[in-house]
Amino acid sequence: MYSFQNDYSELAHNDILVALTKLETEQNLGYGHDKHSKNAKRLIQNYLTPDCDIHFLTGGTSANKIIISHILRSFEAIIAVETGHINVHEAGAIEASGYKILTVKGVEGKITPLEVREVVKANQDEHSVVPRLVYISNSTELGTIYTKTELKNLYETCLELDLYLFIDGARLGAALTADDNDLTLKDIATFSDIFYIGGTKNGALFGEAAIIKNPKLKHNFKNTIKLNGGLLAKGFILGAQFEALFTNNLFFRLAKYANGLAKKITQGLKKLSIPLAQRWQTNQVFPILDEKIVTKLKEDYHFDIWETRDGKQTIRLVTSWAININEVDAFLETLAKLL
Amino acid sequence: MYSFQNDYSELAHNDILVALTKLETEQNLGYGHDKHSKNAKRLIQNYLTPDCDIHFLTGGTSANKIIISHILRSFEAIIAVETGHINVHEAGAIEASGYKILTVKGVEGKITPLEVREVVKANQDEHSVVPRLVYISNSTELGTIYTKTELKNLYETCLELDLYLFIDGARLGAALTADDNDLTLKDIATFSDIFYIGGTKNGALFGEAAIIKNPKLKHNFKNTIKLNGGLLAKGFILGAQFEALFTNNLFFRLAKYANGLAKKITQGLKKLSIPLAQRWQTNQVFPILDEKIVTKLKEDYHFDIWETRDGKQTIRLVTSWAININEVDAFLETLAKLL
Amino acid sequence: MYSFQNDYSELAHNDILVALTKLETEQNLGYGHDKHSKNAKRLIQNYLTPDCDIHFLTGGTSANKIIISHILRSFEAIIAVETGHINVHEAGAIEASGYKILTVKGVEGKITPLEVREVVKANQDEHSVVPRLVYISNSTELGTIYTKTELKNLYETCLELDLYLFIDGARLGAALTADDNDLTLKDIATFSDIFYIGGTKNGALFGEAAIIKNPKLKHNFKNTIKLNGGLLAKGFILGAQFEALFTNNLFFRLAKYANGLAKKITQGLKKLSIPLAQRWQTNQVFPILDEKIVTKLKEDYHFDIWETRDGKQTIRLVTSWAININEVDAFLETLAKLL
Amino acid sequence: MYSFQNDYSELAHNDILVALTKLETEQNLGYGHDKHSKNAKRLIQNYLTPDCDIHFLTGGTSANKIIISHILRSFEAIIAVETGHINVHEAGAIEASGYKILTVKGVEGKITPLEVREVVKANQDEHSVVPRLVYISNSTELGTIYTKTELKNLYETCLELDLYLFIDGARLGAALTADDNDLTLKDIATFSDIFYIGGTKNGALFGEAAIIKNPKLKHNFKNTIKLNGGLLAKGFILGAQFEALFTNNLFFRLAKYANGLAKKITQGLKKLSIPLAQRWQTNQVFPILDEKIVTKLKEDYHFDIWETRDGKQTIRLVTSWAININEVDAFLETLAKLL
Repeated sequence: MYSFQNDYSELAHNDILVALTKLETEQNLGYGHDKHSKNAKRLIQNYLTPDCDIHFLTGGTSANKIIISHILRSFEAIIAVETGHINVHEAGAIEASGYKILTVKGVEGKITPLEVREVVKANQDEHSVVPRLVYISNSTELGTIYTKTELKNLYETCLELDLYLFIDGARLGAALTADDNDLTLKDIATFSDIFYIGGTKNGALFGEAAIIKNPKLKHNFKNTIKLNGGLLAKGFILGAQFEALFTNNLFFRLAKYANGLAKKITQGLKKLSIPLAQRWQTNQVFPILDEKIVTKLKEDYHFDIWETRDGKQTIRLVTSWAININEVDAFLETLAKLL
Repeated sequence: MYSFQNDYSELAHNDILVALTKLETEQNLGYGHDKHSKNAKRLIQNYLTPDCDIHFLTGGTSANKIIISHILRSFEAIIAVETGHINVHEAGAIEASGYKILTVKGVEGKITPLEVREVVKANQDEHSVVPRLVYISNSTELGTIYTKTELKNLYETCLELDLYLFIDGARLGAALTADDNDLTLKDIATFSDIFYIGGTKNGALFGEAAIIKNPKLKHNFKNTIKLNGGLLAKGFILGAQFEALFTNNLFFRLAKYANGLAKKITQGLKKLSIPLAQRWQTNQVFPILDEKIVTKLKEDYHFDIWETRDGKQTIRLVTSWAININEVDAFLETLAKLL
Repeated sequence: MYSFQNDYSELAHNDILVALTKLETEQNLGYGHDKHSKNAKRLIQNYLTPDCDIHFLTGGTSANKIIISHILRSFEAIIAVETGHINVHEAGAIEASGYKILTVKGVEGKITPLEVREVVKANQDEHSVVPRLVYISNSTELGTIYTKTELKNLYETCLELDLYLFIDGARLGAALTADDNDLTLKDIATFSDIFYIGGTKNGALFGEAAIIKNPKLKHNFKNTIKLNGGLLAKGFILGAQFEALFTNNLFFRLAKYANGLAKKITQGLKKLSIPLAQRWQTNQVFPILDEKIVTKLKEDYHFDIWETRDGKQTIRLVTSWAININEVDAFLETLAKLL
Repeated sequence: MYSFQNDYSELAHNDILVALTKLETEQNLGYGHDKHSKNAKRLIQNYLTPDCDIHFLTGGTSANKIIISHILRSFEAIIAVETGHINVHEAGAIEASGYKILTVKGVEGKITPLEVREVVKANQDEHSVVPRLVYISNSTELGTIYTKTELKNLYETCLELDLYLFIDGARLGAALTADDNDLTLKDIATFSDIFYIGGTKNGALFGEAAIIKNPKLKHNFKNTIKLNGGLLAKGFILGAQFEALFTNNLFFRLAKYANGLAKKITQGLKKLSIPLAQRWQTNQVFPILDEKIVTKLKEDYHFDIWETRDGKQTIRLVTSWAININEVDAFLETLAKLL
């Protein structure tokens, strides 16, 4: 059995493990006050607009919950696409913190400025929640990415409407190293209020780096981390990992490698005339196959089934830093034989 | 500088690091469905009453928040001692989940059956919260431990009053290996409804094992973990660590070692005629020193100041699996010179 | 100006005012422990299945929030139609209590057993909320009503799937006195776990009577009322009003009167060949008119605009116990002239 | 049986009932957009600093919950005296909204600037909540009142420490008409950020007028009212009552009358040499009696027992606008006979 189920099936990239094990008995201050966390922040800050606050968090759902609950007051709400991670795969984490998610259809998993305007217009009186935060993912849950123009327009719409823009960057590495991408980390900081850089899905044991650009959102963020159970006692574990990720471009190299394998899969599928449910852009590929083929593939491979309709199934193939290129070839060969 | 500030200043015990790094590129299922988590549960189950549910969590505050919010309905409340971790050091995590903590004075950091009865009696009508859960820590925040008789009496009081008993075991290893201890892990499961076994403060990178004995509390616990942002994508990191901790008695050996060093410190302090603010029992020691001495000590050592009164300071010294015995000797010599 | 905007534009029916003012200086116990509340409960209990718990609440949103937050644990969720009051007109009250609302399309404002099954099927793993409560309104937000067969089927589906069924009865009077209705109050209690009988929209100053049939949901309900700020100090105000409403059939007579006026409007619209956006059944009528006509009507009448599309507007006309029949005639004449 | 149990045992003062019943079939806009609410706000505004926002709420617990949850972000907390209403008699309403109450001892039920400073000093790091709001009651739960100097000092301390000051005015009428009082409504607005004027305990059926002076706290307050279930559909019921209360000084006259009766009781007790547990200042009197006497008194009177100790009981006697002066005389005579 080989797994294309997700990008967090393996422990961590060797550079990260080496960086960590070097600390074995080194004494460090707790809760992120250590030197590794400080150094990692310095390394990341080089890629950003000046004076961002940086905090290391343990995972994506936790990051989303912490960031959203830090920003919003009790009467405020979030705008997101229906397929947004916070709306479907987080067991009600956002509502459990007290906030309603106002959903829009989106286009290719991305929200449009027009949709944002319409939600704001429809929620104006005292019987409505007050939209205050736009949540997007880049890359999205469908593997697509925002262009610089799209992000800039969305951010300007948010500024105009007095909304905050928050980018879930669980797969930001995949977005920033995509062939189609024209955004830098600095652009991400420029055209948003707060975002995070995902480590879990890009080679770390776990960990996300939250970046707060908007000064209004900076104070007491660590209290919010703590009260949500997200403040790691041994915060230096996160610091050391991000030191490694932002040394020698490891973060970007790992993501680019994963995208390259997805491209190879996409090209192989094209040769086999297999249609995709979503345009390919990053490390997720969504081929549509006959149910029978999927059943056969399941004997040798782990992957998720995204949708079942009329005897066809859309499956999701995810690549990562840890996937062996030979396994990609083997998968395509297996598939070719099954057709 | 050497640190006696806490028991989570170093990365992890070598056995754990070795167990982890072996997994480097092994593919595992996500979210705790992996074989290491399953095996670790099997190893822990051997120490418990039959048919406990076991879940691995990422840290103490997170564990407390998840367990309490899983159990309680919106109108229910917790009884705890004033010094309880949930009441003072968790940034309002429990209240943020919607629950009031009803506090009692306690004796040596421990709650008494009489105190529980009094709180229940005082909260009987519709203008009160409904006490439903007793929270205790073993070892306590003051380093003391519950005897078997004390725990049994408390649990029976809870049964009588229709209350759940939850034990915060962030330092359960220290409790169970204390010289004065007469409890086993099986006793802990027998005389409580739910508890956790702390890894973070006993040699792991991070991680706590939640044990649910009461069948009423078992269903949907993973949903509660997820919605609190506590479900690690790479759950096998937790599984592999607890496999190591519960192999060759590592968990108990590390805790016993830490207690032994604290005993050595306690004996050294006695020779120096330095009084303790709390009876010594586990890996925390609370000597009372002149402020001037403390100021001097601070030049060479990290530790917390617990209380300042009348020119005297109570400090807290914490030992762990990673503390070097020579450093304990050196500390006592330094202190002797300062007196 | 005359208002068909809602059924709570006037103070209260004279019988209720008379009953209230009789109490002027009578001393009563607080918080619903008074004799009027007890007597009102006795009067209502006559219409129900045996041994229901009855509590008086102050309004609809408050009742929905109290009932839902009383029932659900933190990981559980609600199933409701998109147009459900809790989903659109309560400013996020339910999410503020921590619960996600899983919405379905519904048919004529009513949820179907099939929709319930599909939601349960789609929310099975630890990354999902756990559906536990089905919320319906009768009459619905679109003025339609459930038949006995529909309600029975829905309740049996809920029993099968271990879901609670909660009926928002803000306009239950209108439903139970509709020409098409085949349900009694006893049926409502038989085929649900909890519901409320709306007073605010049927002649009271304010007030809803919550009826708890399911024994599991009974205990500590008053604590939940209190913690949500819904426990009226002078609870006898609610008791006395429901005494009046359930004396001489006042509750049913007022609702029937309102429905009769809506029927008259519906018949008048039919004569004028004006189409309805929703089938008429109770005290709400939804005619579709040209925008120009609506603009003219707005000069003389208060009413809500429900939807605007392609130069047409659906408006909502609501009748109540307080509407003068002559005003209905006048409205129809005005409309006829404008066409 | 006669009741001195509280100040909300009777329906409402006749002026209020007359004002209400005049509206019987008058059509009004819903949710506080009506002309009576507007007029009542105008009448109250005359007593305040310029440009306050005024909203009518349904009761004290609801007002406390709405105001606190409107102001605080998720990581922020409240400072209050142990005896504060929000801490003991609201069934966890504040914690249910997610906020911790940090309690201090207080002096005669009043918080001191020093206590506020100490709490702020003790809650400085990421493991603590962030104190942001000081909650006081005037008159307090012990019947005492703040002097102008005390309130000014407290408010200035709050300004210095970046805290909001919120005054629970459920019995503000009693405070402002006390013999010892030197505060006006304008002073209350000057030396606080937000407060409310209690109607429920001073002659209304129910209702509190929330006054928001601090501009930062004004926006979206009605959304917060709604999401807490506190927005009355027939808001004009509240408007009309406050119109009556602020016409011909009714609000002040009723409170003064209640205080006068409490004074009479206090003087009577003095003659009987019965000690008070609290200094008398407003409409609450706390005599200490032998348990046997209390048991006898209970045969003829309703009142609360405040504390039982060493064979003595402190009872609470509350007077109101509705108490008959002859009943006060009768009570004192009964007591004299029992001694």
